[in-house]
Amino acid sequence: MADGRQPGGYEDLPQTPANFAALSPVSFLKRTAAVFPDRVAVRYGDLSRTWAETDARCRRLASALRGLGVGPGDTVAIIAPNTPALLEAHLAAPMLGAVLNALNTRLDARTICYILGHGEAKVLLTDVELHGPVREALAGLENPPVVIDIEDADAVDPARLGRMTYEELLSGGDARFEGTPPEDEWRALSLNYTSGTTGEPKGVVYSHRGAYLNALGNAVTWSMGQFPIYLWTLPMFHCNGWCFPWTVTALAGTHVCLRRVERDAIFDAVERYGVTHLCGAPIVMAMMTGALTEEPERARRVFGGRAPGAGVRMMTAAAPPPAPVIAKMEELGVDLTHVYGLTEVYGPAVVCDWNPEWDALPAEERARIKARQGVPYPVQEAMMVADPDTMEPAPADGETLGEIFMRGNITMKGYLKRPEATEAAFAGGWFHTGDLGVLHPDGYVEIRDRSKDIIISGGENISSIEVENALYKHPAVAAVAVVARPDEKWGETPCAFVELNEGAAATEEELIAHCREHLAGFQRPKSVLFETLPKTSTGKIQKNILREKAKGL
Amino acid sequence: MADGRQPGGYEDLPQTPANFAALSPVSFLKRTAAVFPDRVAVRYGDLSRTWAETDARCRRLASALRGLGVGPGDTVAIIAPNTPALLEAHLAAPMLGAVLNALNTRLDARTICYILGHGEAKVLLTDVELHGPVREALAGLENPPVVIDIEDADAVDPARLGRMTYEELLSGGDARFEGTPPEDEWRALSLNYTSGTTGEPKGVVYSHRGAYLNALGNAVTWSMGQFPIYLWTLPMFHCNGWCFPWTVTALAGTHVCLRRVERDAIFDAVERYGVTHLCGAPIVMAMMTGALTEEPERARRVFGGRAPGAGVRMMTAAAPPPAPVIAKMEELGVDLTHVYGLTEVYGPAVVCDWNPEWDALPAEERARIKARQGVPYPVQEAMMVADPDTMEPAPADGETLGEIFMRGNITMKGYLKRPEATEAAFAGGWFHTGDLGVLHPDGYVEIRDRSKDIIISGGENISSIEVENALYKHPAVAAVAVVARPDEKWGETPCAFVELNEGAAATEEELIAHCREHLAGFQRPKSVLFETLPKTSTGKIQKNILREKAKGL
Repeated sequence: MADGRQPGGYEDLPQTPANFAALSPVSFLKRTAAVFPDRVAVRYGDLSRTWAETDARCRRLASALRGLGVGPGDTVAIIAPNTPALLEAHLAAPMLGAVLNALNTRLDARTICYILGHGEAKVLLTDVELHGPVREALAGLENPPVVIDIEDADAVDPARLGRMTYEELLSGGDARFEGTPPEDEWRALSLNYTSGTTGEPKGVVYSHRGAYLNALGNAVTWSMGQFPIYLWTLPMFHCNGWCFPWTVTALAGTHVCLRRVERDAIFDAVERYGVTHLCGAPIVMAMMTGALTEEPERARRVFGGRAPGAGVRMMTAAAPPPAPVIAKMEELGVDLTHVYGLTEVYGPAVVCDWNPEWDALPAEERARIKARQGVPYPVQEAMMVADPDTMEPAPADGETLGEIFMRGNITMKGYLKRPEATEAAFAGGWFHTGDLGVLHPDGYVEIRDRSKDIIISGGENISSIEVENALYKHPAVAAVAVVARPDEKWGETPCAFVELNEGAAATEEELIAHCREHLAGFQRPKSVLFETLPKTSTGKIQKNILREKAKGL
Repeated sequence: MADGRQPGGYEDLPQTPANFAALSPVSFLKRTAAVFPDRVAVRYGDLSRTWAETDARCRRLASALRGLGVGPGDTVAIIAPNTPALLEAHLAAPMLGAVLNALNTRLDARTICYILGHGEAKVLLTDVELHGPVREALAGLENPPVVIDIEDADAVDPARLGRMTYEELLSGGDARFEGTPPEDEWRALSLNYTSGTTGEPKGVVYSHRGAYLNALGNAVTWSMGQFPIYLWTLPMFHCNGWCFPWTVTALAGTHVCLRRVERDAIFDAVERYGVTHLCGAPIVMAMMTGALTEEPERARRVFGGRAPGAGVRMMTAAAPPPAPVIAKMEELGVDLTHVYGLTEVYGPAVVCDWNPEWDALPAEERARIKARQGVPYPVQEAMMVADPDTMEPAPADGETLGEIFMRGNITMKGYLKRPEATEAAFAGGWFHTGDLGVLHPDGYVEIRDRSKDIIISGGENISSIEVENALYKHPAVAAVAVVARPDEKWGETPCAFVELNEGAAATEEELIAHCREHLAGFQRPKSVLFETLPKTSTGKIQKNILREKAKGL
């Protein structure tokens, strides 16, 4: 048969430089800068740079990093808001085969110190506004990295820490530097530490192959055409901005950088630059929809009046958007796509892929559907809901609770220097998300809870999310988190922490009574506390703190 | 450094089933059938099938082929117009790791016989309309394949050749068959024979990796969103329909199959199904634009009246669209994208990527720009114009003639059982296209000629295409081919073969005089002959025949 290893048979046709190239996001910048040199690559306030200029700056940065001794497999850390420097670092470090480690700007000194040490950063680029915790972190390091200060006219209370500024570094670089991207597409591209509510943060390693595929996957999943105008409301330090630094570059779009994620800045950018796409957590949606009541005319002006099908599109993750939020986003004129993922799967790897037939459904039904997490991205291979002990898939009945598992090319290489954690995460050939959910008959997954957030009351599993959803339906509730409270009789009972809307009022009894319409007796909260919810630097509610509090009640 | 092979270091995080999947177009059907089972996958006249139905049929086909003894690396041949069976073969054969060999329906018996023998086809699926040459071809084979007849109500003068029909084969298959797609993405996916104007046709082998990437690349290159309605005017036997069987499947679109590529059928399908995309050679555009004068009302009805940005979009290859054709397509309301490639690079791998700024240019200027071949696809790594002897890149001056070279993931694995030809094609680490062109200062390539079509007169290179373009500007000229005519004094001189427009008239002297406006003296044709141009089964003008004729003048 032709398949045999006969000369020139099907499998006697090896990979050569002519017919094989390592997949790497480095290719995207190269092409876009060559084909569309004069189109706008970056906006940042009044600053505007073309793709030719951005390409030259990235080459300068890469060559200057090389000059500082950074080679393939070395870590380059950066801590900065969504500025052009952070974008350039995403495009430049891979040119060297260096590994980019973008840190959360809200981390405390201790965690920054841990990450810089664990990741063995050789260089740290740091925004001058963040000098406080960074200085303290550096003081705790035995082998501190070379520190470069990213100056910014808009930085509040800036101070320098390093030996030179970012612009000085670039000015010493070579705008025609060719780089040495890896020949093996499995090489490490970036390092992203999980926020880890318990224990030390884990360093998630991405590959060039995974990022390349996810960059294209974003475009396909979201039906993005060429030349998107992308607003950076999603932090680039979150899963490398879910790979959008590379998606938008591949599509020769414009990156609209944003130092502070605030309504004014968002609305100004949308109006001024004709933003077409943005991503963000529910908090960003809340900022935007607030305008509907507070400055309705502006809301109309900024988002309305676009041609049909040319409106602003937003992806949201981190929590399923509640029905009222979806309704308000619709009212604003923003098309919402709900996605789900974790740092370990390059950010979102599951999308609530919208079937146009659903457009005709009533709003409530649409909201119910849109709140589901959905189906795997086209570039992720598979997802299953299964018993975490036996790995037996759960029936697609919308009821049987199981853990969500994923596998495929947009799963991390592993955790840096944590072989046991990596092995545990990949046990059985699937990535264990730790999220619990059900599979609906149409194949869409819906998360019910994190494994550790499940409440076990009288032997029954209670999804904290289900209880939260019930409470969200009460008009006075602005935000809610439900955790387990130890109980002598039941083992655990649901305990709700609630933030009320401004000017709204509700009592514990009233909210528990409200839950009767939506929940079975054992699922209803037994205690309700009214207080501001504690949040992580990335805006996630810190249930671990509330859990401690509930224990002490 | 973290890169070292320390436990869990950057490069101590291996590929596992959790974080690696072989790229294969098989994944696309799996996902689309799971997520959008009820959307329409296939239209064919009055027939309509959903993705669930199509998926079941493809699984049946794959399992039935397995039942006929087809295993990984075995060749499955098919000869059929753009019917659902040909589409299903594209989706089913890869499930088995079998290699699909789709044959040109216009081939003669001798060539079919050669291809089936050389490709070692185990099974041949053959449309009942094509029994004539296929019967003759089979008679010449020592080890003929198992023959399956694809019946079709619209087949003209049908006859059966095989032991069972395609539907009988499917009815014996398993609709839940899981398949065994290859674990190595470099495995052969398909076999496409070049038309080869001289010598035996060469079998170009594609890989699963290349087709997967090109399928996504099509979507990105053409800014295709989800759910395209794709009309099959481009033969699927051409470079696997340039990989669109897999692109449209990945995007959960609808394949509108088309048995005969004729204006009536095209217009009916566009109107009836709301076609959004199609591809085709200049001949298809000519069919379509003919309606502007012959049935203008219908032309308006079928293509006009769509929302802005929602018009029909067409990709065209094989020859640069002349200015009048572009103008007519614009008049029709079809957005035209010009692409260029060869069988060896999965069909088009170069696109005249349109910069929106060009929209404001005068029509003539736009046509001049659009006639250029362009820049590499985002998924092709690189292209260069270089001296074929030294591989020295030509300056980007729009003047220096060189051969066009390409490299990257959408280059073939090689030629089946032709090691010397493969080696020659990939010499120096680049694929040699054999096309001659210039690189413009903006990085767009423009083809001037095939290496073998260049005319050398008095030591000067004359591009036959340049002479043809000059002649095309004469209003009486419908089609033209210019070849070298041996000349005692000059070595060679340009000799033009011309087809005139119906009712138009022109003399040899008139056309040569016309060329004075556009060409230097040595470039002008010295002889002009009026006659119907000989064409291959794929519509290419057979310059080899004209060259022979010119020799004999």
